[in-house]
Amino acid sequence: MTETDRTSDRAQQQTGRDGGGPGGEALSFTHVTAGQRVLFGSGSAAAHLAAEVDRLGARSVMVIASERERALAGEVTAQVEVALWHTDVVMHVPVETAAAAREAAQAAGIDLVVCVGGGSTTGLAKAVALTGRQPIVAVPTTYAGSEATNVWGLTEDGRKTTGVDDAVLPVSVIYDASLTVTLPVEMSVASGLNGLAHCVDSLWAPRADPINAAMAAEGIRALSEGLPLIVDDPRSTAGRDLALYGAYLSAVAFSSAGSGLHHKICHVLGGTFDLPHAQTHAIVLPYVLAFNGPAAPAAEARAAQAFGAATALSGLDRLRDRVGAPRRLADLGFTAADIPVAVDIVLQNIPAGNPRTVTVEGLTALLHAALDGSDPADTSTITTTTTDLRTEE
Amino acid sequence: MTETDRTSDRAQQQTGRDGGGPGGEALSFTHVTAGQRVLFGSGSAAAHLAAEVDRLGARSVMVIASERERALAGEVTAQVEVALWHTDVVMHVPVETAAAAREAAQAAGIDLVVCVGGGSTTGLAKAVALTGRQPIVAVPTTYAGSEATNVWGLTEDGRKTTGVDDAVLPVSVIYDASLTVTLPVEMSVASGLNGLAHCVDSLWAPRADPINAAMAAEGIRALSEGLPLIVDDPRSTAGRDLALYGAYLSAVAFSSAGSGLHHKICHVLGGTFDLPHAQTHAIVLPYVLAFNGPAAPAAEARAAQAFGAATALSGLDRLRDRVGAPRRLADLGFTAADIPVAVDIVLQNIPAGNPRTVTVEGLTALLHAALDGSDPADTSTITTTTTDLRTEE
Repeated sequence: MTETDRTSDRAQQQTGRDGGGPGGEALSFTHVTAGQRVLFGSGSAAAHLAAEVDRLGARSVMVIASERERALAGEVTAQVEVALWHTDVVMHVPVETAAAAREAAQAAGIDLVVCVGGGSTTGLAKAVALTGRQPIVAVPTTYAGSEATNVWGLTEDGRKTTGVDDAVLPVSVIYDASLTVTLPVEMSVASGLNGLAHCVDSLWAPRADPINAAMAAEGIRALSEGLPLIVDDPRSTAGRDLALYGAYLSAVAFSSAGSGLHHKICHVLGGTFDLPHAQTHAIVLPYVLAFNGPAAPAAEARAAQAFGAATALSGLDRLRDRVGAPRRLADLGFTAADIPVAVDIVLQNIPAGNPRTVTVEGLTALLHAALDGSDPADTSTITTTTTDLRTEE
Repeated sequence: MTETDRTSDRAQQQTGRDGGGPGGEALSFTHVTAGQRVLFGSGSAAAHLAAEVDRLGARSVMVIASERERALAGEVTAQVEVALWHTDVVMHVPVETAAAAREAAQAAGIDLVVCVGGGSTTGLAKAVALTGRQPIVAVPTTYAGSEATNVWGLTEDGRKTTGVDDAVLPVSVIYDASLTVTLPVEMSVASGLNGLAHCVDSLWAPRADPINAAMAAEGIRALSEGLPLIVDDPRSTAGRDLALYGAYLSAVAFSSAGSGLHHKICHVLGGTFDLPHAQTHAIVLPYVLAFNGPAAPAAEARAAQAFGAATALSGLDRLRDRVGAPRRLADLGFTAADIPVAVDIVLQNIPAGNPRTVTVEGLTALLHAALDGSDPADTSTITTTTTDLRTEE
């Protein structure tokens, strides 16, 4: 491959990746819209669930909820005849847990799986549907987002296997913000910023297209309006409504567009250094935005508009101030000594078509800035000179 | 019902209808996302179609295209083995036409229907799938939008019956702007403004929700950017790309949100006075926007942002100037004498929850303004006093 070929190849990739939407360039993309019913309303979960069970003509309903959320799930399913309760929910869905749930479902002749809870609960419902092919109605109580995707995951001997199957996409999702008011403010903010990160990151992710960019922008708007309201009044459902809605959109955008640079970095920080998921995302996002933004003007403009700010970065900064976002990876136990290891792993996983070339130098500077919580704007000016991975390929 | 009840009832309806998206109010909606693959790329239809036929494992493919588009359809299907060609396409899908196509499909053991053409062609494919349950892959060559909906229509003895069935929703839609370059500029503009009207109107339609509002806003953006490019350079695919993409979004938003006031007015003008569909939509839209906009501030703001203008109305005005939009219903043969009849019929069909009360006086003034092509801004100030239909109920 000649240098010219490489350059034009990269330019072409970038055209598809900078999910800012319509512009003067050729539109070329494949977008898969996942068909789902979304029933949204605070205080309406029980009524919505009864209507869905009725609409689907289900005769034997299994309800999956963790012991901790058993009482809540009891309220949500109060108007439904439940054939089987299953409360053995374990994080990351171990294969043994999945097998037990599948056997129970089969023995009871289950024809609809209802899950009430967070990501692990939804994950177990997906494990059941993956083999049993029952439809799922999901009632999420966190911002995990699994309910909006066709991705399943199972863990065996500490290794997680994931896959994609339309049979595990819940046919209906029931969002009820009143179920989320007990989520502590700090966790709501971190989790909401995690959703926001998915939205922003999806704008330059490998399958970014104008449709998932529109959903991502709507998610940015909802989360940036909702999270401050939660901080101001944690019991009010106005902010909870918007945050839950935004978290749904972030899952839609993320599952459609795929993992961008931000997600890859956070994945390494979580997987290798055991940093907490949501907080890590909240801290790292502004630095990736500052790094990629100048090379993705359409994405930056779209995010800026969604934030209602002059630039995406200033909009995000304002939001971080407003909600008291976590700011330093150092506070999570990450150290400068960890950076070279992290850089090494991340560089092996740079997403196709990232709008800006990622170098050892650039990524090191980005992580140092996130470690210390220094001004993200400085990250925009990180130079990319010596170690250009792409041209080394 | 007391006056207070009516007022609060109307206010509540408006909350759900003013599809401006997130705000301080409670979010409450049911949104059905239609699952589809959208393959977009100018010049890529043949390759995309071959890939879809392969992916779906189809063994016996029927291609529906009108005689006029037979050659074009031949190019699009060049890489596919076609078991059955069907070119007997008639506007509005008469039941006899549908019956013949269904019999031919059954006799040939068709397991995939491919349609290449406009609304009537897609409509015939839907008629086949409605009874035969074959999947459809649609390759639209106009901005009709039928390919993005699960709505079918059949005509018998001059009466059109429509229905909804997920089996008629094409599993895949292949958009190729190069197939639309022969669409004359004037028709492209009128048809594009018709799509734009669907987007704007969906913001206050009966099932308006923030998700379809986000799609509508993206459609407004794409169409308002694309149509001027078509006027400037009809052979370029840049504008055609955006207009086709925007037309797709308008269909998604419209089928999700339902018919708003604009659509109801145009439906009467078309049905009773035989005015041409697209031109009528293009002319009437600014007057409905001026009428409803002040009562739907969130929708107005969302549309304004999508136009990149201070107000939605100024954005639309700028676009109409730029593309030389049709401006007077009088030019289509409509007369002042027709107005009372039109008003009478429209008033029987005001969509639930229109943000502004529609009166004889208001609607008459609106239609007079559209008849003459006077400044839409004057319509904003139409007073609603004497004949308030809602309070008469």
